[in-house]
Amino acid sequence: MAVKNVSDITLSGGITHPVKRGHHGILYGVGIGPGDPELLTLKAIRVLKEVDIIAVPKSKTDGESIALDILKGVMDLHGKEIIELTFPMKKNRDELAASWNNAKDEVLKQLDIGKDVAFITIGDPLLYSTFIYLMEALKNNGGSGIKIKIVPGISSVNAASASACIPLANSSERLAIIPATYEEDKLRQTLKDFDTVVLMKVNKVMDKVIPLLEELGLKKNAIFVSMAGWKEQEVVKDLDTLKGRELDYFSIMIIKKS
Amino acid sequence: MAVKNVSDITLSGGITHPVKRGHHGILYGVGIGPGDPELLTLKAIRVLKEVDIIAVPKSKTDGESIALDILKGVMDLHGKEIIELTFPMKKNRDELAASWNNAKDEVLKQLDIGKDVAFITIGDPLLYSTFIYLMEALKNNGGSGIKIKIVPGISSVNAASASACIPLANSSERLAIIPATYEEDKLRQTLKDFDTVVLMKVNKVMDKVIPLLEELGLKKNAIFVSMAGWKEQEVVKDLDTLKGRELDYFSIMIIKKS
Repeated sequence: MAVKNVSDITLSGGITHPVKRGHHGILYGVGIGPGDPELLTLKAIRVLKEVDIIAVPKSKTDGESIALDILKGVMDLHGKEIIELTFPMKKNRDELAASWNNAKDEVLKQLDIGKDVAFITIGDPLLYSTFIYLMEALKNNGGSGIKIKIVPGISSVNAASASACIPLANSSERLAIIPATYEEDKLRQTLKDFDTVVLMKVNKVMDKVIPLLEELGLKKNAIFVSMAGWKEQEVVKDLDTLKGRELDYFSIMIIKKS
Repeated sequence: MAVKNVSDITLSGGITHPVKRGHHGILYGVGIGPGDPELLTLKAIRVLKEVDIIAVPKSKTDGESIALDILKGVMDLHGKEIIELTFPMKKNRDELAASWNNAKDEVLKQLDIGKDVAFITIGDPLLYSTFIYLMEALKNNGGSGIKIKIVPGISSVNAASASACIPLANSSERLAIIPATYEEDKLRQTLKDFDTVVLMKVNKVMDKVIPLLEELGLKKNAIFVSMAGWKEQEVVKDLDTLKGRELDYFSIMIIKKS
């Protein structure tokens, strides 16, 4: 545990490129894309080669990290120092916060001894990603001196639209991206107000979404994509075939009105 | 001019992987990212190396293609066949449609003789991109046999959020991405309804946006990013410093309420 003095730490955001204080390392948030190792950027690969440590989010202590698996498809990680940070997927708020605090302490410890750390996330680091929680835990820790740099990644939204060959938005069109934790009234209004609506992690709420789309006459405008950019990718236009099926966590629906 | 028989052509979207008819080539829509050549994906580079022809959108006949310039930063294009397709930026609807028709005919001609064509676009091919117009022109041409594959790219939205180190959305947050052609009432409502609002090509409407953000008490929640991912990148938190300035075409504003 090498938690810095609270008043010593702030998030710089890597915008103003503050002077690197003393021996402190840089924290990189690196998006590794939706699942296909070929969808990593040249920048992600360079940064991951250059840093001292790759920090990897895991949902279980005994399982494999999905993000690390993707990386192995395109990089030789032999001899690379890897820290696994465990975050339970289904726990209460306090337990989750404790996990993030532990992760933050682990990362701070490495930055504090001058090591550069790259935290990898599936998709993009700033769109529904584990990296945001880590940033928030660091922010709550206060102070100045942590330099953060973001390497953007191909998000699952762009990957799903590519797999389905459906434009997200063009010209004067408006696009809404909303998670599966929406309330029905809000979703109804959003479907009325926007040209394209992307529902994230839709697997949890398919039984509510399909009747609503039917009611609004939009069922034929919807396309379901699971595991976009993976070998197991699935693109489904007839939503009725999904009824009663166990659907993957990486499920997205694109509803395009025009 | 080698326009196919209308009944022969449909867009498959690359989903169902239809049998490649006869000698027809594949059309790739390839996103090359926001401007930094390092933000190309491995897949984009592989596809661009493998195809027979790279098709490049240009806004002027006498200027350089920006997309091609980005590509030159990371690939050796020596000996590669390149088709330049010119699309005027400011012309009337009919003239634009004529440009897209010419582009479509040019692309069809190459596909027809069995050549694979990769059309490159800045950012992602399916989010406010020139490739969407080309797809629509092909769709209006009817028929079956054109196989389209999309290689997603880092969009300017993800690049801007990375440059500003501002999360787009997390957990149950809702994200809206809207172009600068909005009406004020719609923008007002969207700013109320969504946790994060991204305004594309905001340079055109800064004089309207700033007073609206002031009225809604959101001016301090906004961050302006121009040319994200380019060397000339600029991230501005104090919007007042932008007043009266000539702003770049690649300008984005992120308004994050929390």
